[in-house]
This record gives sequence, C-alpha cells and structure tokens, in this order.
Amino acid sequence: MRTIDVMGQNAKAAARQLAVAGEQKNEALKAIAQALLTHQDEIMQANRIDLENGKANGLSAALIDRLTLNADRIRGVADGVLEVAALPDPIGTVISGSTRPNGMNITKVRVPLGVIGIIFESRPNVTVDAAVLCLKSGNAVILRGGKEAIHSNQCLTAIMQDAIESVGLDRHCVQLIQDTSRQSSVELMELTEYLDVLIPRGGKGLTNYHVANAGNCHVFVDESADLTMAADIIYNAKTSRPSVCNAIETILVHEKIAEKALPVIKARLDEKHVELRGCDKTRTILGDTVVPATESDWETEYGDYILAVKVVSSMDEAIDHIARYSTGHSECIVTNDYVNARRFTAAVDSAAVYVNVSTRFTDGGMFGLGAEIGISTQKLHARGPMGLNELTSMKFIIEGNGQVR
Amino acid sequence: MRTIDVMGQNAKAAARQLAVAGEQKNEALKAIAQALLTHQDEIMQANRIDLENGKANGLSAALIDRLTLNADRIRGVADGVLEVAALPDPIGTVISGSTRPNGMNITKVRVPLGVIGIIFESRPNVTVDAAVLCLKSGNAVILRGGKEAIHSNQCLTAIMQDAIESVGLDRHCVQLIQDTSRQSSVELMELTEYLDVLIPRGGKGLTNYHVANAGNCHVFVDESADLTMAADIIYNAKTSRPSVCNAIETILVHEKIAEKALPVIKARLDEKHVELRGCDKTRTILGDTVVPATESDWETEYGDYILAVKVVSSMDEAIDHIARYSTGHSECIVTNDYVNARRFTAAVDSAAVYVNVSTRFTDGGMFGLGAEIGISTQKLHARGPMGLNELTSMKFIIEGNGQVR
Repeated sequence: MRTIDVMGQNAKAAARQLAVAGEQKNEALKAIAQALLTHQDEIMQANRIDLENGKANGLSAALIDRLTLNADRIRGVADGVLEVAALPDPIGTVISGSTRPNGMNITKVRVPLGVIGIIFESRPNVTVDAAVLCLKSGNAVILRGGKEAIHSNQCLTAIMQDAIESVGLDRHCVQLIQDTSRQSSVELMELTEYLDVLIPRGGKGLTNYHVANAGNCHVFVDESADLTMAADIIYNAKTSRPSVCNAIETILVHEKIAEKALPVIKARLDEKHVELRGCDKTRTILGDTVVPATESDWETEYGDYILAVKVVSSMDEAIDHIARYSTGHSECIVTNDYVNARRFTAAVDSAAVYVNVSTRFTDGGMFGLGAEIGISTQKLHARGPMGLNELTSMKFIIEGNGQVR
Repeated sequence: MRTIDVMGQNAKAAARQLAVAGEQKNEALKAIAQALLTHQDEIMQANRIDLENGKANGLSAALIDRLTLNADRIRGVADGVLEVAALPDPIGTVISGSTRPNGMNITKVRVPLGVIGIIFESRPNVTVDAAVLCLKSGNAVILRGGKEAIHSNQCLTAIMQDAIESVGLDRHCVQLIQDTSRQSSVELMELTEYLDVLIPRGGKGLTNYHVANAGNCHVFVDESADLTMAADIIYNAKTSRPSVCNAIETILVHEKIAEKALPVIKARLDEKHVELRGCDKTRTILGDTVVPATESDWETEYGDYILAVKVVSSMDEAIDHIARYSTGHSECIVTNDYVNARRFTAAVDSAAVYVNVSTRFTDGGMFGLGAEIGISTQKLHARGPMGLNELTSMKFIIEGNGQVR
C-alpha cells in the first residue's frame, strides 16, 4: 500500500473521531498555541535550514521573507490559533428545522466535511492556519506544502500532532506529506477514496480545482465617478499589495470621463511607478509612455506594479469585458449613478462585486467572517472567503414515532 | 465547432439574460404549463413512437409504464409547472448582511449557478420538471435524456422553447441534446468551459458525479426497539417502492433483540414475498429459507423485493457497517433509548439520518422543501433533496463611499 493510502486511511479514522469531538477541539488548539511558543527555538532551527537552502537556490528576497519564521511571527501564528479557538464551533449548529404535518421533526445541522486535502505554497504559517481551521471545523487534514518550507512544515506538524495527542485526540487529525515532488500533489488530487474535498491554494495552475490565490480583478470607472475616489481606490487596489489575489489587474474607464480621469489616475499610480499598458484610446490621452496593450494583457494576472487600462464606450462594454476576462474573484464600479450601481452589481458574476470600495477587502477577516483558508472563485459549495462554515457540510436528522409513507 | 459547443455558447448567453430576469421567469412557466395542455395530442403522438419502439425493443412493462404520457399525466406535469411558478423566487434573496466598522455594507445574495447540464434516465416528465426548476432558479439548462424517450423529449423541449420565447426570453434557456449515444453524455460531462454544474440523475454508473437516484440505505433495530414499529418501518422502507433511492437494502438487528425481532419482521415482509439474505446468526434464527448473505450483499442496491439482514453485537458494529457500506443517502435507527438515538444521529454520516421514521421520507416534497431535482449524496454544495435553493450560488455585494485598505 502506498504511503498516501495509509495517510488517507488514518485521516478517515481520525475524522470519524473528530466529527463527534466537542470542546476537546479547542483544548487541542490551545495546546498547539502553547506548544508553538514552547518549541519556538526548534521551529526557528528547522526554518533556518529552509532559509539556507532557499538562499543557495537563489530564492528572491520577497520569497525568503515569506519563508522566514522568527520569534515575533511564531507568536503571531500562536495568537492566530487562539483566535480560532475563541470562535464559535460551527459543528452541530442547527441551520433550520421544522415539524412536518405527519408529526416528524426535521433538523438540518452542520457537520464536518470529513477529510480535507490542502495543497499550498511555501509560507510555513499556512501549515498551522490551515490545520487549525480544519481541526476547529471537525475535519482531518492532509497537508501538502511547498518544498521550500519542508523542514519548517515537518517541525510544525510534529509539534501540532504531539499537542493534539496530548488532549486525547488522534494525532492523524493533521498529517503532512513528506514527499514534495510534483507527483505527490497528483497523488493527493487523485485520493478520492479518502478525501471529501481538495483545496489547492496557490498559483494559477491549481485554480481550476477549488480555491484561488489568484484573481484577475477589475475596476470600472463610470462616467459619473468621483475622480479622486476613483484614483484612490485604483491606487489602493493596485499598489497596497500587488501580489495578492484581490489586487486589480485591469481598469476600464468610461470614454465620457476618460480624458479627465486618466491623467488623475496616472498621477496617483506614478507615485509607485506603476507601469501602464493601455488600449489605443488610453495612449491617445496619456501619451506614448503607456505601453500598448495586447490581448494577453486583458488576461494576465501581473501580481506586480503593472496595470492594464482600457477605455470603454459604455458600461455594457465594461460588463462584457469582465464576463470574458475575469476569473470571478472581485470587481468594482466607481460611480455616483444609482441605476448603474444596481445594474453592475446584478450583472457582474463574481464572488465579490464592489461599489465605491477597494477590491482589497475580499478577505474573511475584512468581511467579518473570521479566519479563512482562501477565497473560492467557483460557484459550488463555497464562494468568496472560505471560513469555518465553508469547511462544513450539513445533514438532515429526522425524528418521529413510527412514521411511514 | 461541435454541436455541443454551440449549445454551450447559446446556453451561456441565455444564462446571462436569465440571471437578471424576474417575473418573466414565472410568465414563462405559466406559458409552458398552458402549452403542454394545448399541445397534448402532439405530445402523445410523439410519445407513441417511443412506446412502439420500446415495445419492439422488449422494454419491461414497468419501463413502458414510466415512459408513457397520457392526458392525465400531461395535466399532472402541467400542474407541477404551475406549482413551481407559485414558489418564491430564490434569486436575489438576501442570505445575510452587515455593516463593517469602516462603514461599508456587505450583502450576501443568492444568484443562479449559470448553466446546468442534466443527464437523466428515460422518464419524459423529468424533462419538464428539470427544465422548469432550472428556469425558476435563473439557470440555463442542457438536457440529455435517455434514448428510449427521445421523441417525447424532443416534442416537450420544442413546446417549452416556444413558450419561453413567447414571453420574450431566449429559447436557449432550455436545450435538449439530440444525440442519445453514450458519447454525447461524455461530451456533456466534459463541457466544463460552459457548464457551471453537471447533475447526472440515474444509475449507479453516474453517482460519482453529483446526484444519486440510487442509495444503499439501512435500518438498524436497536435492542430497545418497539418491535411492531420496527417491522412497520422496515416493511414500508423496503416494499412501498423498492426501486427508488430512499428504499432500504440492508437491516442490522441488535443480537439482544434478534430472536424476538427477526420472526416479526420476516412475517411482515412475507406479505410481499421479500427474499431475505442473511448472515449466519440470522439463518440460525429464521432457518434455511433465508439465503446465505455474502460480502456482495452488503454492497448491493437491489432495487427489488430483496433485503439483506445482519445481526450485530452492538450499535457500534452497526455504525461501522454503515460507515463501510452506505452510499451516504438515508439511514434509520429504530430505538427507544435516548442516548443511542443521539449517538446514532451524531455518528452516522449520511445525508438523512432517521430515528423511528421510514427512510422513504427523503424527498424534497416530504421535507417541505418543494419540488426537487434529485437527492444529493455528496457533501459539497448540496446534500439531501436538491430544490430551488440548491440550484443557486451566492455572491457578496459590497457598497461604500471610497473605502480603501
């Protein structure tokens, strides 16, 4: 039997125990938070190996930074675990209920999904975040992290497993795949016999499966837009953190306001040296410093200080452009026209549709939903920030005294 | 371009129109109900071809009956359409909402899934039922029905399309795949570029995808069970309609009550000549008329007057047996023990878990959820009866006055 199958079996057994665990889950989370602090030297030592390997392999300064765990960050991770422990337990929540004419009672209750597989990039804090969200929602998890963080992840997983066991739960509630070859991702994706859901976080190659860490987000500047607001929102949505999934990649500007708006927007973006790639009309207004945009620019998630710019002749053209090129993550209209605001929010089919607010808010914490495991851009099951509730399913419980049909 | 791709494109365009249609959807449903009655002779004529072909191909009397459309049944289908028209429109429902500390308003609203593909068996009434549920929930649908009903389905679809067009909606809201070869099912399953969700109803071969029309359901008779109630529930759940997905296939009987219970249960089932296939202990109690059960009996969905019987030494053994062999549809415990009832409903991981009620109630209408498109036995998105709400997704709408982060 392959290692991955053994992990699957162990996860399934752990999941059945976890499904009926109550306060023990919070005890496990508290034990994890404590253990992370107790073992912080060990964690930093394992992390140092990853950092040295990363530097030897020429990882960028940005990636090295994401990989780094220091005492402050470990404390931050532990605090995050305690925050999740403090959230209400979603399992057992009664979603709805009724008594039917024949006297039987129907209750729809929240239950765990079972076994969750998560494939993620190289930030080691995700290992802990993902594990504790799954644990709290009653799910066993099989983690497959990036190879750059393997030593950190091994250390963190072992610490979590010991903590979980210390409160009487099965240590296989959290498991880490040791093999970081591409093959191990494929094996996990194919582990349908044991996995109830697979959540791949990360790059574009994986977004067809479940959860995006990428998004091709748009801002449409309507003809009635307040220009300062438009420039502020675009500046924020593009430059506050260009690499994240809720940053924008393209702006669409109504032609009736383009001549006034584009210079204001450009001036604001120049503060951060954002490269613009524009359509012909954009270049006529802003001049040749704007790189000519090609078809591929409308499709590209730059994740960088680059922004595609298109002048559109109507809101319908903007809506059509978004329907064609968006990944369905977050889109924004800047407008002061009531009818247009309503029509844009109705017609645009993305997980989050904004009026006069930066797309950067698409985030579980910002939405008030608590910690999240990622942003779902698909329409089945969960859409938008995936918090604890989105890691659950439901079942119907029907009680009676001998009803037959 | 393949025919199926053209259908996909047309469906996508129709879905965008339908997503923002309101009362027009109900007008379309009323027009469909009326047209079914107006064209009933045409429908019966098309149906006659299917019936003649079916008889020539040696279809069983039961299948011929399922295939038959007469004036009464057409009126029943039309009445069903009007019932769906009378249901509240799920689209635009506000699921939740809040104002965040920075003053932006977040609303979570129900939206259509988009384009739904449905693969189903040969009952022609399903063509109409599925189409109107999709239409009401704002989704375009591509139907792929069984070849036995192709003439009926073509006629019904053309009538629905004309009715839809008569109220100003795109006739491609409902489309039928004309090719009934196995290949056309595969093509539809692979049409991921255009389909937002695929719902295969029907046989076991398809249940891995989304919705089951099959289920391996269990009744566990606890040692504290009322024997008459146990026999009545088992009799009902097995014999009232053996071919449906919420009928039971196996009963598990606690050994402390088996000697008293099994003869009572058998006497009741003998009324309908139900064949029993039992474990060794069952045969010791009931005698050699019980066929010896093999491993495959625990896995089989007979869909017939056959029932597997196992004596278990504890409720835990019953729960383990269900975990191993169940398809996750519906399971029942007959008990008068409060602790056991609670533990069974918590530990059994199926879409519907019953205490002292026949499993035959797993049904949208019986649950008070209205018309349904099938019973989902998977845990993602929808679980249990799939009614109008289960044919929708949601999106977040965020409104503000220039919030940035």
